[in-house]
Amino acid sequence: MRFIDLVRARESCREYTDRPVKKEDLCTILEAGRLSPSACNIQPWRFFVVHEGDLVGKTAKCMQGMGMNRFTDQVPAFIIICEQTTNLKQTVASGIGGHSFAQMDIGIAAAHMMLCARTMGIDSCIIGWFSDKKLRELLNLPNGCKVRLVLALGYGKKAEPRTKRRMEFDDIVTFVETPKKKGE
Amino acid sequence: MRFIDLVRARESCREYTDRPVKKEDLCTILEAGRLSPSACNIQPWRFFVVHEGDLVGKTAKCMQGMGMNRFTDQVPAFIIICEQTTNLKQTVASGIGGHSFAQMDIGIAAAHMMLCARTMGIDSCIIGWFSDKKLRELLNLPNGCKVRLVLALGYGKKAEPRTKRRMEFDDIVTFVETPKKKGE
Repeated sequence: MRFIDLVRARESCREYTDRPVKKEDLCTILEAGRLSPSACNIQPWRFFVVHEGDLVGKTAKCMQGMGMNRFTDQVPAFIIICEQTTNLKQTVASGIGGHSFAQMDIGIAAAHMMLCARTMGIDSCIIGWFSDKKLRELLNLPNGCKVRLVLALGYGKKAEPRTKRRMEFDDIVTFVETPKKKGE
Repeated sequence: MRFIDLVRARESCREYTDRPVKKEDLCTILEAGRLSPSACNIQPWRFFVVHEGDLVGKTAKCMQGMGMNRFTDQVPAFIIICEQTTNLKQTVASGIGGHSFAQMDIGIAAAHMMLCARTMGIDSCIIGWFSDKKLRELLNLPNGCKVRLVLALGYGKKAEPRTKRRMEFDDIVTFVETPKKKGE
């Protein structure tokens, strides 16, 4: 499969069957995240996995409210992607020019994991709307770990991906040309 | 190729041959970025491509100083990854809980592009140390576009990837267990 076809095949899935995700498959996905690159190789990510018992449903509730993310009740496995915020080097780096290298790194790791999942036939959805406080209490997350994203994982009900709605290529890409000199 | 092997094969490359990257290959890589997912599908990224003439070398200079990134003199192509910061919806979303969804999205798009490049035999390096001001002036970047990352692209001199230095799996991954009830 060409990489671009993998990209086209991956989509945010919000309808899941009740098929569970095997722990060994979760480990492969997590390994793809672990091996991701990060600024200065700081690896700011910490992954908390929920895939067993009634904790899964309780975790889903931490992403719900105001009509949001009801589909998470169907999700069989979650990877809670946290930023380890207590690294001084990272904190310093984060302060330059409004950049948050740690959050860009978190995005890189999330991309690795969801693309890896797709190659294994596992669907996913990145969730950015959740209660950090509720997740923290339920899962007993350590201090210094800030929840940045939640990756929902499971087997989707749909066989064919939707057509992607994206801005046109020319609206987001500019090939910068060298200015011509006088007389050229 | 299994995805995990692609992840292992990709590494930050800082030694390039003088082989240029074809524009059509750059377009494929950019397409992988364009199709990336983002929070609320906002697509906060804008890509500026430099791959021709003396602009390439001048762009490299914007990432140098204090001994940093000298290798960029060898790089035949750059994708300047900017965040479009003037989107109100994005600005609101960015303000919740210290999250920068836009920067996480930028990370996701960067991961798509560098992994895509690797499948095409093209090496890359994400650069986070640069002068936004110099890049802005040189490339005439529009207001509202903030440079977040630069993706260097080219053909590396080394055939075999280095062994990755990463934290151990158990140091960053926690499988959260449901607490056992009394008597179980």
